[in-house]
Amino acid sequence: MVQVHQHEWWQRDDLHYQNNQLHFAGEYVQKLAHQFGTPSFVYSSARVEANLIRVRQALDAAGLAGRSSIFYAMKANRFAPLLRFIKQTGLCGIDACSPNEVKHALSCGFSPSDISFTATSLSQQDFAELARYEGLFMDCDSLHAIRRWGELRPGSEIGIRINPAVGIGRACNDRLHYAGCKTTKFGIYQEQFMQALELAAQYGLSVSKIHFHTGCGYLTPELEQLDHVITECMKFVDASSDVRSVNIGGGLGIPHLPEDQSLNLEQWSIVLNKHFAHRDLHIEVEPGDYICKDAGLLLLGKTYVEQKRDTLFVGVDAGFNIAPEPAYYGLPFQPVPLQIDDSPLTLTTVVGNINEALDVWYENALLPNLAQHDYLALINAGAYSSSMASNHCMRGEFNEFLLA
Amino acid sequence: MVQVHQHEWWQRDDLHYQNNQLHFAGEYVQKLAHQFGTPSFVYSSARVEANLIRVRQALDAAGLAGRSSIFYAMKANRFAPLLRFIKQTGLCGIDACSPNEVKHALSCGFSPSDISFTATSLSQQDFAELARYEGLFMDCDSLHAIRRWGELRPGSEIGIRINPAVGIGRACNDRLHYAGCKTTKFGIYQEQFMQALELAAQYGLSVSKIHFHTGCGYLTPELEQLDHVITECMKFVDASSDVRSVNIGGGLGIPHLPEDQSLNLEQWSIVLNKHFAHRDLHIEVEPGDYICKDAGLLLLGKTYVEQKRDTLFVGVDAGFNIAPEPAYYGLPFQPVPLQIDDSPLTLTTVVGNINEALDVWYENALLPNLAQHDYLALINAGAYSSSMASNHCMRGEFNEFLLA
Repeated sequence: MVQVHQHEWWQRDDLHYQNNQLHFAGEYVQKLAHQFGTPSFVYSSARVEANLIRVRQALDAAGLAGRSSIFYAMKANRFAPLLRFIKQTGLCGIDACSPNEVKHALSCGFSPSDISFTATSLSQQDFAELARYEGLFMDCDSLHAIRRWGELRPGSEIGIRINPAVGIGRACNDRLHYAGCKTTKFGIYQEQFMQALELAAQYGLSVSKIHFHTGCGYLTPELEQLDHVITECMKFVDASSDVRSVNIGGGLGIPHLPEDQSLNLEQWSIVLNKHFAHRDLHIEVEPGDYICKDAGLLLLGKTYVEQKRDTLFVGVDAGFNIAPEPAYYGLPFQPVPLQIDDSPLTLTTVVGNINEALDVWYENALLPNLAQHDYLALINAGAYSSSMASNHCMRGEFNEFLLA
Repeated sequence: MVQVHQHEWWQRDDLHYQNNQLHFAGEYVQKLAHQFGTPSFVYSSARVEANLIRVRQALDAAGLAGRSSIFYAMKANRFAPLLRFIKQTGLCGIDACSPNEVKHALSCGFSPSDISFTATSLSQQDFAELARYEGLFMDCDSLHAIRRWGELRPGSEIGIRINPAVGIGRACNDRLHYAGCKTTKFGIYQEQFMQALELAAQYGLSVSKIHFHTGCGYLTPELEQLDHVITECMKFVDASSDVRSVNIGGGLGIPHLPEDQSLNLEQWSIVLNKHFAHRDLHIEVEPGDYICKDAGLLLLGKTYVEQKRDTLFVGVDAGFNIAPEPAYYGLPFQPVPLQIDDSPLTLTTVVGNINEALDVWYENALLPNLAQHDYLALINAGAYSSSMASNHCMRGEFNEFLLA
């Protein structure tokens, strides 16, 4: 099979071949790999900003200008220079889920009032630490959390994370569902919602926000589900008197496979407009993947090329432990050569340096003969990669770089 | 449903209820949790030693006394005090898979000649570093590796990791198969074996060992497969003239579920005896799980108890990121209360503090009412837990303690 790389599905203005060399964020990737060494994550700050702006424009197009906010889900990528850059764009606040995340966001210049905090299974010590941040907005995801926060911060405003019992997400992947048929630990279900409101009232808490998050990685075909989820969630909003804000969580996805289409933000916008344009509500969204994932490449050094039986293997100098999505979540990072020419392409399986069967980066990628290549890049490695890295097999070393 | 805890399947001499209190390694676990705080891993050195002795005795019973070695697979748990303890038992060497693992083993008192090194996708830099350790024994898993090692250490002895194309492992779990129908990155297949021997000869390398590893977590029912795998591997041994050692890898499993039976080491011994007793070969084995997994508890603090719909949730103060086996590999860590009484047991789902759908420690465990409990213990948390921990959601903090 032969295929011309100039037409690869993932190419875009800031990530494409120029003079047959992979070019990313204004730089030749070969030069970056050579300079930084491997394994290295490189992030494009311009792409991060463009992704944020696109979400902002979609919110505006939904008729929500001036009454909507973006909170970047920092669990996706907390690399400090990147967080600092995001703060400086002024386009968003932070979605944090642990006391240490809050502290880290503050260390990068965010203030407590920039932070929307939504977590699960907080300990008494967590609550006590969080209560010290004046202005931090707490979403309670259980009756227990309402009680604890009420004790520590009586009279404050809170959000309630609800569980609409309907889910959304990439249909193929039941590891990424947060709500749906099966009872999950997340949020307060409808049957307990009145009890939750009463409990809040007992502590003088004003429930000014409804929060929900019901899946990950949705694309255009899933927007119908999003529509349905919001419909269900609005029943909670309508049942409470103090609610002024609705947080629709994150979950905005990006394409991972050639057959995936980018999330159509115009259509996303239409869904939001339908539910919220006529309502006097502040709308919040918490994207993580959508902001950072396609803004990051993982640069890897080639270690060997060898045919074993029916499979051509290319080995690289890092394994799934520094970027677990392909191995654990089945979300592939497409490998991309740093140079192209007219030579034929071959089905190639890219594997890492961990002694585990699941340490396979990509099966049967169409790649040129890599004998003369020193490096490979994996695209879409900007989120849930370094932030979830482990030192498994003591192979946890890597570097990160924020590019212009 | 009611069940009496005194008869739980996992109880044994050094892990059981005494005066209705969980007792482990000579200590009341409640006291340990209170003293150490949570989350904490506690490891029993006595249990580690007992596990090593059991493997040693089984090798002896197989007629391999004086001509067999154990190499502990340090990737399972590299906690330095534990590694140091293992060194001091004098019962085994180390199976290492990365240059940093070698360095860490040396830091704990092992010498290069104690180390059996088997890795995949080594970089040029890795090879160069490893070549500096006189006495380190290298198993080459590709033609490429033979070439590189031959260049750096011509004339030395090597092992060849072969791939017999037949697998073994817990039948239910295709994430833990290392060889079998599908071509994997691991080892040299039969078709290339002669080429591998010729290549080694070109560099004056003497192939004195055949290494194979074909799965994880096998128990007694899988011994028939082990028998078959060894039969296949012996074809490689018989095809090479210099081989004096055979390394049968690790993979010895322990029970995770009430219905699992412990691996019957007498039967394991019989398989080894059948293949090796009459042969003039040194036999090596590389257990990891078997040595450490059941020697470790993960102590967790309870954060809440709350019914949601049909499910009673108990939250704890750590998530799957510090011990990924349940979430990622489907190998459950049974939760165990630290105190028991005559109160009825209830189906309870134990969940962690990570904002992810897969952060569930155990579904539907039979547990007492935990309202008055401060802690829970998870059993079988001694391997592939802390060694694979990440700081996901910045929830990566935990402590480790080596007990007597």
